[in-house]
Amino acid sequence: MSKMNKIRSFDDVSGVAVVDGGVILETLDEYLRPRGYTVPLDLGAKGSCQLGGNVSTNAGGLRLIRYGNMHGNVLGLEVVLPDGSILDNLSTLRKDNTGYDLKQLFIGAEGTLGIVTGVSLITPRRPKAVNVAVIGLESFNHVLKSFVLAKEDLSEILSAFEFWDNDSVDVVQSVMQPSEKYPFGQRFPFYALIETQGSRADHDLEKLEAFLGRLMETSVSQDGVVAQDSKQAQSLWNWREKIPEAISKAGTAMTYDFAMDTKLLYKMVEDTKDHFSRLGLLGQGKTYSNLLGFGHLGDGNLHIMANIHRFDEVGQKEMDNFLFEWAIKHNGSITAEHGIGVAKVNYMKQCKSDTQLRLMRAIKHSLDPNLIMNPYKVVPEMHLE
Amino acid sequence: MSKMNKIRSFDDVSGVAVVDGGVILETLDEYLRPRGYTVPLDLGAKGSCQLGGNVSTNAGGLRLIRYGNMHGNVLGLEVVLPDGSILDNLSTLRKDNTGYDLKQLFIGAEGTLGIVTGVSLITPRRPKAVNVAVIGLESFNHVLKSFVLAKEDLSEILSAFEFWDNDSVDVVQSVMQPSEKYPFGQRFPFYALIETQGSRADHDLEKLEAFLGRLMETSVSQDGVVAQDSKQAQSLWNWREKIPEAISKAGTAMTYDFAMDTKLLYKMVEDTKDHFSRLGLLGQGKTYSNLLGFGHLGDGNLHIMANIHRFDEVGQKEMDNFLFEWAIKHNGSITAEHGIGVAKVNYMKQCKSDTQLRLMRAIKHSLDPNLIMNPYKVVPEMHLE
Repeated sequence: MSKMNKIRSFDDVSGVAVVDGGVILETLDEYLRPRGYTVPLDLGAKGSCQLGGNVSTNAGGLRLIRYGNMHGNVLGLEVVLPDGSILDNLSTLRKDNTGYDLKQLFIGAEGTLGIVTGVSLITPRRPKAVNVAVIGLESFNHVLKSFVLAKEDLSEILSAFEFWDNDSVDVVQSVMQPSEKYPFGQRFPFYALIETQGSRADHDLEKLEAFLGRLMETSVSQDGVVAQDSKQAQSLWNWREKIPEAISKAGTAMTYDFAMDTKLLYKMVEDTKDHFSRLGLLGQGKTYSNLLGFGHLGDGNLHIMANIHRFDEVGQKEMDNFLFEWAIKHNGSITAEHGIGVAKVNYMKQCKSDTQLRLMRAIKHSLDPNLIMNPYKVVPEMHLE
Repeated sequence: MSKMNKIRSFDDVSGVAVVDGGVILETLDEYLRPRGYTVPLDLGAKGSCQLGGNVSTNAGGLRLIRYGNMHGNVLGLEVVLPDGSILDNLSTLRKDNTGYDLKQLFIGAEGTLGIVTGVSLITPRRPKAVNVAVIGLESFNHVLKSFVLAKEDLSEILSAFEFWDNDSVDVVQSVMQPSEKYPFGQRFPFYALIETQGSRADHDLEKLEAFLGRLMETSVSQDGVVAQDSKQAQSLWNWREKIPEAISKAGTAMTYDFAMDTKLLYKMVEDTKDHFSRLGLLGQGKTYSNLLGFGHLGDGNLHIMANIHRFDEVGQKEMDNFLFEWAIKHNGSITAEHGIGVAKVNYMKQCKSDTQLRLMRAIKHSLDPNLIMNPYKVVPEMHLE
């Protein structure tokens, strides 16, 4: 889609942008910057991912907690349907209740119902002030407590609440930035990064400092760092953002992406570690040399990553099964934001009820009766019917 | 649905509420109040409307500009399908990319695809501070200018931006509150109500005052009132909220609900007035005794209301045709939030492309092949096929 890369229009009163499906996320954000607006979506791949793909995969990312999801921010779509006809639904209206909201079908359908060639989306004002702090925490329960306090004290300016465990720090430090000093003297089992975005730097900093003060007073956290400038802010973000890359460079990586009840998020990591430690499979030189947990706590979204012996398909399968079953048993999602694709399609029958699968098949059959769009993905066993 | 009125669960870490479809909006909000949360939806009918109905009609309301729409805030639905089976999709997860997002189909489908019996939704923190100001404006262009400045200066705390014309004031004053003094000495052609919701009263007031100062300095507005307490705030809101009731009490009312390019919103009112004045049909004692415009400017949502001679079906039809054609010609929506129902179903063929209608019919056929759910509504000519 990279040749469909035009920004078609932008309205500086409403903040509505209409773009080709192949426009790169960061390109649009750079276009919006001098106009005082920003894309309501931010993720590690921003320099290469395209907006049509963001729509088709229902991309979540780092600031969903603040700006909401694609289902709320996309106002219209232009989609090429399987029969070659074009669904011209590129509305720029924020409210429109004329019939079924067809565009919603294609958000997160992973290209199995059509190809997104145009996107209309609402963009918020670009924040004038961004503040970042990282805090150290004694337990996952303290992570949860700090999140509740952050929502209370930072409310409308809270734009990210990320967390990671201490093992994540070790991997990033050793693989990615050995010369970089971790900004905490004493190490903690958990860390949380809190970001605020607002229109007044002085107000935001006052709120952030009051919040950090309350954390210390109530002993929810014992140590914290506040970035003094945007360079420091980026270096704090690096400890979180470089985790996936670090694990990938450290060896053969397995990547998981779960959503569940926020209170259970880290129990999943602990149960998994216990299980594979008891089997003698987890640890330096074993099947899984490490296993770590981090993610978008504000969205109840946990990423688990591990390094595994190369070409160990049995080990891969065992980890998949354990984690996917754990998630399903605890009413979680086996993919919060990465999607089903072909890798997880066989687990769909375990996660979804017969009624849900029946409806998904009906929609797929109705739009793509010849099953030509991204075949074998998302909806299981379509080709058997 | 009123007997299905249980609040099923609430999670005070994530802010996710799960409720029966018959729970009244205000009841849920009262339940959330002591817990520090609020429903991300507010509308005049909050004391009687039910959440299942809010979902089915994709209710918009007064604070969509701040909290986004139902497509973003609803996390899961329980729906009784036309064949009697239950779609149990009551997820409490903020992110979930396992297959098609089925719940989206039922949001705004006006009950034509199933009955919503359960709703899971994300609720934001209840604001600790609410501020309200009303400003007088010389032209609609000044309304637009003040909106752009409000987004710039109030950004994350802006929770409503409503506008109304001077004719609206006259009707509210004469019909609803003759003893209430309108808070402006001099009258203006337009007024805008700006509301902020935030976590710190002092910060919010400082932002609001800076914004109002800038309006005066740049001559965008010449006069404004800031509510000093919640009672005054309510009395300022009354001038906006009582318009529909006032028109209904003043005679036989016609109510319209359009969305379009914000810059064109009031041109629609002016063109309509010109048209019917030229025909000699608008004015005291004529077919239409008055015609006024107001609405949710921040969402590009205009309500037009008029009083018409009782039982004048020709007059009703003429106004419908003029307005609906005007909206369609200007790429607007003939219903931003009220829905299609049976009254507007015959206009669907003018507003939607063949491809759009074909997809809507395919969805309807696929879920409700016997056309038993809310028949003759939303999708035109289903019964002819």
